[in-house]
Amino acid sequence: AKLCCLQENMNLARFLCFSSIIAVSYSAYLPTWDSLDKRPLPKWYDESKIGIFIHWGVFSVPSFGEGFAAEWFWEYWKGVSSPSAVYFMSQNYPPDFQYADFAPDFTTEFFDPDQWADLFAASGAKYIVLTSKHHEGFTNWPSVNSWNWNSMDVGPHRDLVGELATAVRNRTSIHFGLYHSLYEWFHPLYLQDKANGFKTNEFVKSKTMPELYDIVNRYKPDIVWSDGQWEASSDYWNSTELIAWLYNKSPVRDTVVTNDRWGSHTLCKHGGFLTCHDHFNPGTLQTRKWENALTMDRGSWGYRRNVGVGDYISIEDLLHELISTVSCGGNMLINIGPSKEGTIHPIFEERLRQMGEWLGVNGEAVYSSQPWKHQNDSLTPGIWYTTRENAVYAFVYTWPASGNLTMESPLATSQSSSISLLGGESNLYWKTVKPSRLSVVFPVINPSTTQAKWVYVLKMIG
Amino acid sequence: AKLCCLQENMNLARFLCFSSIIAVSYSAYLPTWDSLDKRPLPKWYDESKIGIFIHWGVFSVPSFGEGFAAEWFWEYWKGVSSPSAVYFMSQNYPPDFQYADFAPDFTTEFFDPDQWADLFAASGAKYIVLTSKHHEGFTNWPSVNSWNWNSMDVGPHRDLVGELATAVRNRTSIHFGLYHSLYEWFHPLYLQDKANGFKTNEFVKSKTMPELYDIVNRYKPDIVWSDGQWEASSDYWNSTELIAWLYNKSPVRDTVVTNDRWGSHTLCKHGGFLTCHDHFNPGTLQTRKWENALTMDRGSWGYRRNVGVGDYISIEDLLHELISTVSCGGNMLINIGPSKEGTIHPIFEERLRQMGEWLGVNGEAVYSSQPWKHQNDSLTPGIWYTTRENAVYAFVYTWPASGNLTMESPLATSQSSSISLLGGESNLYWKTVKPSRLSVVFPVINPSTTQAKWVYVLKMIG
Amino acid sequence: AKLCCLQENMNLARFLCFSSIIAVSYSAYLPTWDSLDKRPLPKWYDESKIGIFIHWGVFSVPSFGEGFAAEWFWEYWKGVSSPSAVYFMSQNYPPDFQYADFAPDFTTEFFDPDQWADLFAASGAKYIVLTSKHHEGFTNWPSVNSWNWNSMDVGPHRDLVGELATAVRNRTSIHFGLYHSLYEWFHPLYLQDKANGFKTNEFVKSKTMPELYDIVNRYKPDIVWSDGQWEASSDYWNSTELIAWLYNKSPVRDTVVTNDRWGSHTLCKHGGFLTCHDHFNPGTLQTRKWENALTMDRGSWGYRRNVGVGDYISIEDLLHELISTVSCGGNMLINIGPSKEGTIHPIFEERLRQMGEWLGVNGEAVYSSQPWKHQNDSLTPGIWYTTRENAVYAFVYTWPASGNLTMESPLATSQSSSISLLGGESNLYWKTVKPSRLSVVFPVINPSTTQAKWVYVLKMIG
Amino acid sequence: AKLCCLQENMNLARFLCFSSIIAVSYSAYLPTWDSLDKRPLPKWYDESKIGIFIHWGVFSVPSFGEGFAAEWFWEYWKGVSSPSAVYFMSQNYPPDFQYADFAPDFTTEFFDPDQWADLFAASGAKYIVLTSKHHEGFTNWPSVNSWNWNSMDVGPHRDLVGELATAVRNRTSIHFGLYHSLYEWFHPLYLQDKANGFKTNEFVKSKTMPELYDIVNRYKPDIVWSDGQWEASSDYWNSTELIAWLYNKSPVRDTVVTNDRWGSHTLCKHGGFLTCHDHFNPGTLQTRKWENALTMDRGSWGYRRNVGVGDYISIEDLLHELISTVSCGGNMLINIGPSKEGTIHPIFEERLRQMGEWLGVNGEAVYSSQPWKHQNDSLTPGIWYTTRENAVYAFVYTWPASGNLTMESPLATSQSSSISLLGGESNLYWKTVKPSRLSVVFPVINPSTTQAKWVYVLKMIG
Repeated sequence: AKLCCLQENMNLARFLCFSSIIAVSYSAYLPTWDSLDKRPLPKWYDESKIGIFIHWGVFSVPSFGEGFAAEWFWEYWKGVSSPSAVYFMSQNYPPDFQYADFAPDFTTEFFDPDQWADLFAASGAKYIVLTSKHHEGFTNWPSVNSWNWNSMDVGPHRDLVGELATAVRNRTSIHFGLYHSLYEWFHPLYLQDKANGFKTNEFVKSKTMPELYDIVNRYKPDIVWSDGQWEASSDYWNSTELIAWLYNKSPVRDTVVTNDRWGSHTLCKHGGFLTCHDHFNPGTLQTRKWENALTMDRGSWGYRRNVGVGDYISIEDLLHELISTVSCGGNMLINIGPSKEGTIHPIFEERLRQMGEWLGVNGEAVYSSQPWKHQNDSLTPGIWYTTRENAVYAFVYTWPASGNLTMESPLATSQSSSISLLGGESNLYWKTVKPSRLSVVFPVINPSTTQAKWVYVLKMIG
Repeated sequence: AKLCCLQENMNLARFLCFSSIIAVSYSAYLPTWDSLDKRPLPKWYDESKIGIFIHWGVFSVPSFGEGFAAEWFWEYWKGVSSPSAVYFMSQNYPPDFQYADFAPDFTTEFFDPDQWADLFAASGAKYIVLTSKHHEGFTNWPSVNSWNWNSMDVGPHRDLVGELATAVRNRTSIHFGLYHSLYEWFHPLYLQDKANGFKTNEFVKSKTMPELYDIVNRYKPDIVWSDGQWEASSDYWNSTELIAWLYNKSPVRDTVVTNDRWGSHTLCKHGGFLTCHDHFNPGTLQTRKWENALTMDRGSWGYRRNVGVGDYISIEDLLHELISTVSCGGNMLINIGPSKEGTIHPIFEERLRQMGEWLGVNGEAVYSSQPWKHQNDSLTPGIWYTTRENAVYAFVYTWPASGNLTMESPLATSQSSSISLLGGESNLYWKTVKPSRLSVVFPVINPSTTQAKWVYVLKMIG
Repeated sequence: AKLCCLQENMNLARFLCFSSIIAVSYSAYLPTWDSLDKRPLPKWYDESKIGIFIHWGVFSVPSFGEGFAAEWFWEYWKGVSSPSAVYFMSQNYPPDFQYADFAPDFTTEFFDPDQWADLFAASGAKYIVLTSKHHEGFTNWPSVNSWNWNSMDVGPHRDLVGELATAVRNRTSIHFGLYHSLYEWFHPLYLQDKANGFKTNEFVKSKTMPELYDIVNRYKPDIVWSDGQWEASSDYWNSTELIAWLYNKSPVRDTVVTNDRWGSHTLCKHGGFLTCHDHFNPGTLQTRKWENALTMDRGSWGYRRNVGVGDYISIEDLLHELISTVSCGGNMLINIGPSKEGTIHPIFEERLRQMGEWLGVNGEAVYSSQPWKHQNDSLTPGIWYTTRENAVYAFVYTWPASGNLTMESPLATSQSSSISLLGGESNLYWKTVKPSRLSVVFPVINPSTTQAKWVYVLKMIG
Repeated sequence: AKLCCLQENMNLARFLCFSSIIAVSYSAYLPTWDSLDKRPLPKWYDESKIGIFIHWGVFSVPSFGEGFAAEWFWEYWKGVSSPSAVYFMSQNYPPDFQYADFAPDFTTEFFDPDQWADLFAASGAKYIVLTSKHHEGFTNWPSVNSWNWNSMDVGPHRDLVGELATAVRNRTSIHFGLYHSLYEWFHPLYLQDKANGFKTNEFVKSKTMPELYDIVNRYKPDIVWSDGQWEASSDYWNSTELIAWLYNKSPVRDTVVTNDRWGSHTLCKHGGFLTCHDHFNPGTLQTRKWENALTMDRGSWGYRRNVGVGDYISIEDLLHELISTVSCGGNMLINIGPSKEGTIHPIFEERLRQMGEWLGVNGEAVYSSQPWKHQNDSLTPGIWYTTRENAVYAFVYTWPASGNLTMESPLATSQSSSISLLGGESNLYWKTVKPSRLSVVFPVINPSTTQAKWVYVLKMIG
């Protein structure tokens, strides 16, 4: 029972709250988790199912991770002194070389945002999330609060965020989202606040908040993908005020979604969709919308120059991740790491195009689908379900050895029920089998011409 | 009817020939094409069928080709002033930057020759050919005739040739070969000889010959893959003396093979196996042993940093190249371009491993095979043949639409003839069809488990 | 008639002022020019007479100025697009190179602060003033408000200010001062404030003030040499509050002196000593203490790599500057520009040591001296005066052609008056000449052994 | 009693010698020391007296020497592993950095050969000697025998030798000379010859000789200043053939002079003028023409970035070197080390201009002078003599304390003898003093206006 008024001032907004109510005609979200958690997620997000995560920054210059992810290079080198990072530096750089000295070599000379946008469209993804700034604090846009530590002043000499936003919007209907790290490992004002037990918040006032308002006002992202929250509470980060502004007043108030990384106790609990932890894939239906963020290079989000094809996820495993996630109500956010030159290496491109090829055939089972009453089959492993309109879709990881697939979960109720293989034959022979099982006969397949591959999708109507 | 005597002197060897014969008990090859062309190729080469070509050098630093192959960067920049090369330099380097200034950035910090050797073994290739020196003149070994323009003095500070030779020999039974360019675009002594109409040969005396003797004596390559021959005759290059030494006296005299690029009129005519032109694949049986050298990145031998997966050959196309080549009596030399960091990018690795996977199932139809009486089927396109021991192998590019494959060329002569699908069923049903055709029934296939893929191989006995 | 209370809070101090007076027992300086201008200068400053100015920063990397001073390189290149700066960049750097890319090359590998301190001591200077931060905004100490744009994070990876402060204090009695530029040409927050007509002051709050408090608290400079004030009023800069803190509460409140560059209307008017304009040397006695800041390289404060010895001031001209300045009540602040490597080039060193040599002989006429009733002689040009204790000193630029020097201004009043040549003979013959002139006979001099050189000083007692 | 015929062929010349004489009408120098040593030195050389030595090369990039001269950096780093060199590299470069990696940083962006030539003219020097190639083997001209290790291919991308030769000839009458090192520490062919006990001479044939002929034919130097001879005999170096060609047939056969560094036993014995050892200054008259080559930076020939003014010779010491050298029949070759940027630092320039100033007054006592019967005074130290036409010149280091100078050596024979001070009074009072001494009364001097300084020169006629 408080009254809060929104006070706006340049690009800062702030709530003034009073404990006794005088006026009540207030429709906005309050800067409290109670209020903010009640906002329904804009529909586009759940319908999209698939996003592409892009980790790019000064860490793309050393582009090295052994025993750690490459985008954490600075921390592993100078924070925890990981032997592999320390050795790498000692072998390849002068002793006095520091992290900031990498920045001029972040050249991005081949960065072609239109080409990237075309590739994202071809992949079947419906949104992207680009690191506007990672824990290293380097901003991929010309932030006035990060002078000479941003992509316009040093290195690329380009507005990476702005160029990609424009290209994506000009050529595709893909939603544009931004990743933003709250903390910065080595920012001296952050370290000062931290040394003060987070009782001061100079860092938040002069860096985090102005920059968050700035990227929202400039680039109008449909996703604000927060991270780097864990060392301090959401009070320190000023998160609820920011989110209330996002929901009430920002230029993206109708479309924006956020995640749950807004303070040391918010993860898996408060905010928009839940991410819980990296590569979160619970395997069971969740009560709130969630997202499975995972990497294509199993060991890193940032690009690593020295890893082999075995470190990359196969197209089959990638589709398994997608299917098990969507079946349980999640979205999949699959990560790629562009190079310092501005290229997306062919191995990433190949996976994205393979995913797009599969979705071209099977997309109706994924986009705008909903979890079915069963998520996976209780009898046969490797079978997952979704539903959309009047159809139920079964995703079959492995072509049945006998040619016959038996499922416990769906039961065809009438002879008018029909079952087809997406990208294949439209009327498969089926029968019910005791006790209440459904047996489907898989067709003879021509491996040179079939469109059904990697994971087979049965569409069941009736 | 001449007498020639071999005169050896340090690492130079030279023939003295006389027109009247006095002694005749001479068994060596003479330094004439007549004599050299008579030498039979060592057997291992024809049996191997598949080699890997590796283009690596200072050109791997700019690693850029648009409208030209990346390893030709210097010539396209400074020789013919290709607009794309000139523009690339103007955008990314100071105006005064010259080609030699690239060399310190040829770092190879991630070069792990053991890892390369393991990958080559996994690919199924039986030999490799590394550029010891390309037209730029930079030697990938510490040549005493190329001071401060070799991989030990500047850039890698490693003996790239030597490290790879050792790794390949320690871990695999793969034959080690070396590419060597006779000419060097911008070597001042070469340009001087050229200006003299090739009547002087200072360049050959002080650079080409000493270096060719040096790499053979040091690294004992089983292949000397010559190139860069076209501007001058083999007399200028001193080629026949070198080859005679290779065949008679060199440490690899029993195993070495060479190609046909030894002078302006030797191509497709003299030497060991014939390469004729890059990507030579005639489609018909040849009378002499030949080799199809082609690239995995369709537009370049050297690595290009800014190309997409669409520029790379698919595994299907790669296998089609292999099969049509081997069926007509050729070997395939498939090229990869490592990076300046010393890595083989995952997209190259993936293709090599896919090739190895296919050869694991179908290798018996390839290695040590011989062309059959028919090279491809006269009735059904996309069918090629080899033979080995008592079997004939048919390579089928496309699974037959009807499930039945009809071939004109082979005719099963008795009921004891058997036909199997490699990686699949061992006894296929077949029948003869008038007039003299063979019809084979292809099996039902389980796409999740079958080992037969990409190209299907029938083994026909009897 | 206002009451102001000083409110201290961490390292910020702020005055709260009220228009009606309640309490009056307050002894500190108020943050008004009226009040601040009344503070007497600490005595050490006037007694010192000679300081060394040191311009050092990222500008020491291009180290180039043609038609402009080298420390202004950024502005002349990117602000006013001086042809010589633009051409220099186009010839020597890639087109995309920006100013921040220079920073990693600010290496200072030979910087030896002890060696510098010894040289300063040998020069006879009594204070130094180092650029803690010039208009480029790069801080020569690890400022928490200038992350990745300071000498610890990038380039030197050293605390240049701190190391020099320590060395100077450990080895000499020289006073340590710091130059600080209020404005920064290209700081985005400054540009924002400027675009707002200086009605906002985000820049001052988050950059200027915290950094000024920081350098005073950390390095306890005896001089705060402000600059870069001209575009905005001292209200915008918050100057009076800062100075009041300096005078009242700072750790250097008893010793600190400041200059007059604190806002668009303060020059030559408010603050501590007056600098008026660069190379200010009025030639007449001034009512307030002033300083003549001038360069050893006539065309630049920052080091220029490509100038000749003719651009450097001669020792004679340097002494003339010193003498005319001191005679009129000023101090001389003579500038040197160290190199990016951290060296003070020998030509600078030579001048400083020559100055020290001269002061070793003639210092008693300079240090702690005061202007005499006449500044220079009304009859003979090139004669200047100071006085100290009971002596009057005449500085004679040119040895008299006849051997006899006649001066209008001083009149020896008794025969007990004595005149000596410093570094030379102690009892010169003199006589009075009508009307009221003094004629002095200069001695025979041995040019190989005499200590009197460059400028000759007569000491007149009585 | 041999007959030798000169056989010329392109730019190589070679003597064929026979032991019995058939024809005798041969006037050229033979390629034997006996014959070559008989050639008189061209007169210009002795008349010149003063040359400037210029050490410039890739060593100007590290530009570092502690305990060794900077131009020997490579050898001290990689040859003898001097701790100071090894430490310097470990602190400032990546571990894998090699000497050849320095070359791209030899930028010479400020090199203005006209400016250099003007300075040399102003210094009073009459010849210069530039390092065309030092022991590092890097050629400062586009040598076809030193591909990618010369100033056109890498680093400056300019013909440093050619540009300076042209400027010197266009603007001055200064003679242009070239230094050339026979050996190259790390040239692999040299190391091979050395390992063979100098019984092979591949290095001399393919590098030394072609390059020596090349620089003489291209740049027509009046001095070939050889060095780096000590490890092998002049037979190995082919020195006598080269010198015979220089004297007989080369384009500079009438003007060229050489020194004595042509083989392990030639120093101080064979060739043109004698250098004996660096900084050779015997203090007594020599029977053959000799040269005192010495440095302005006492510790180094190559520029050292981190030394102070105390390491540089003073103008007085420089003149003392000149005078004692010329008095004993030598020439002085005073060295400067330009920077990698192409500048001659002001401290060098100052010394050169001071020398020129002194020679402007006293040059008649130096140029074209000859040693007198006494070289220095037997009574008073610090007095040296030369003679020219009918005058004897006495160089007086120190102005006599009493004003009277007494000399033992010259004796004025008649009252018509006259003595003047160059740059000062023309008729000094003198008298003879028993036994046979000459006493001269020095004039009263005005230190502000006199032209006589540093060293005083008496001209005595009669």
